[in-house]
Amino acid sequence: MAGLQRRLAEFAVARNWQQYHTPKNLAAALSVEASELVEIFQWLTPEESAAVMDDPESAHRVTDEVADVLAYLLQLCEVLGIDALAALDAKIERNERRFPIT
Amino acid sequence: MAGLQRRLAEFAVARNWQQYHTPKNLAAALSVEASELVEIFQWLTPEESAAVMDDPESAHRVTDEVADVLAYLLQLCEVLGIDALAALDAKIERNERRFPIT
Amino acid sequence: MAGLQRRLAEFAVARNWQQYHTPKNLAAALSVEASELVEIFQWLTPEESAAVMDDPESAHRVTDEVADVLAYLLQLCEVLGIDALAALDAKIERNERRFPIT
Amino acid sequence: MAGLQRRLAEFAVARNWQQYHTPKNLAAALSVEASELVEIFQWLTPEESAAVMDDPESAHRVTDEVADVLAYLLQLCEVLGIDALAALDAKIERNERRFPIT
Repeated sequence: MAGLQRRLAEFAVARNWQQYHTPKNLAAALSVEASELVEIFQWLTPEESAAVMDDPESAHRVTDEVADVLAYLLQLCEVLGIDALAALDAKIERNERRFPIT
Repeated sequence: MAGLQRRLAEFAVARNWQQYHTPKNLAAALSVEASELVEIFQWLTPEESAAVMDDPESAHRVTDEVADVLAYLLQLCEVLGIDALAALDAKIERNERRFPIT
Repeated sequence: MAGLQRRLAEFAVARNWQQYHTPKNLAAALSVEASELVEIFQWLTPEESAAVMDDPESAHRVTDEVADVLAYLLQLCEVLGIDALAALDAKIERNERRFPIT
Repeated sequence: MAGLQRRLAEFAVARNWQQYHTPKNLAAALSVEASELVEIFQWLTPEESAAVMDDPESAHRVTDEVADVLAYLLQLCEVLGIDALAALDAKIERNERRFPIT
């Protein structure tokens, strides 16, 4: 994941796109991509949504949007200096205490 | 990342939450968390947004929302059988061809 | 507005689309349309965003997305029996007490 | 609706909030409020979502978020000079041609 984050950063530098990559803009772009994922599922029943990978075209579309979400998340982490994996690790530990197994 | 994805899956199983984790619901939850990131930045100027990590409370809030977005993204990938890193790798290669350096 | 809400309801009935119009799905569709509005502005500076209506194509696009957001909001209100104008009137009154003019 | 739009504009002026109300920021705030609506429904089944107004607390929460979405939509229309009802009227006419009744 660190390698992908670096390639994304180099990609933006090479195209002089860093000027657009304020945290505010990247957060907006991330939410737009997340909504494109929601759009795929918006009229599906829960059962239909569970079968979305059975259709190659839908499967490709979902996979592509997942990549877009991860891309903007890593670019946001890059400009903010956040370690996403460490953040998630800490969050899971907090949640394990917050929601004990009953 | 694979280890975190597995821990999230075990976390959901242990709490019997998989019933809620349809792809449709996880995509919605992902977009809700992405919007919570946007909310932090919504009234900030570009310059203020770039300084968001200087304030410890904001820094913690942003880091926490990043973790939430990644958590739902990995849970979505888990139920759909998507390899997020491979998806992003393929996407970057497509984008390198689509936006050649001029 | 009541007339438009009724036309939207008749439009859905005539096409047998009510089956898709659960509150959950309409809320998702509303958020997707709101994100399409965000997408128009995501890389713009504050100043550029203020001039978005100067370009006829952008102006049309923004106007169209505004219509989509209002359409789904009214359809959601229709299925839930919410009076959107009364809800907003009550909200403004609460906010006038909550944020007194200093 | 025009009266509510005017009250919202006066509300912002009286608190000197117009400086924050760029179209970009208002679109982001609108999408954040739309996501707060989605959040209410995110783990509900379609059937549970259809019954959301039966519980007074949920009903209040949904009504409040509907008001927030409409508030930001009208404030966006105010700063951009868009007539939301005319936009929706035009959109419905286009959709009636685009999706003829079969």
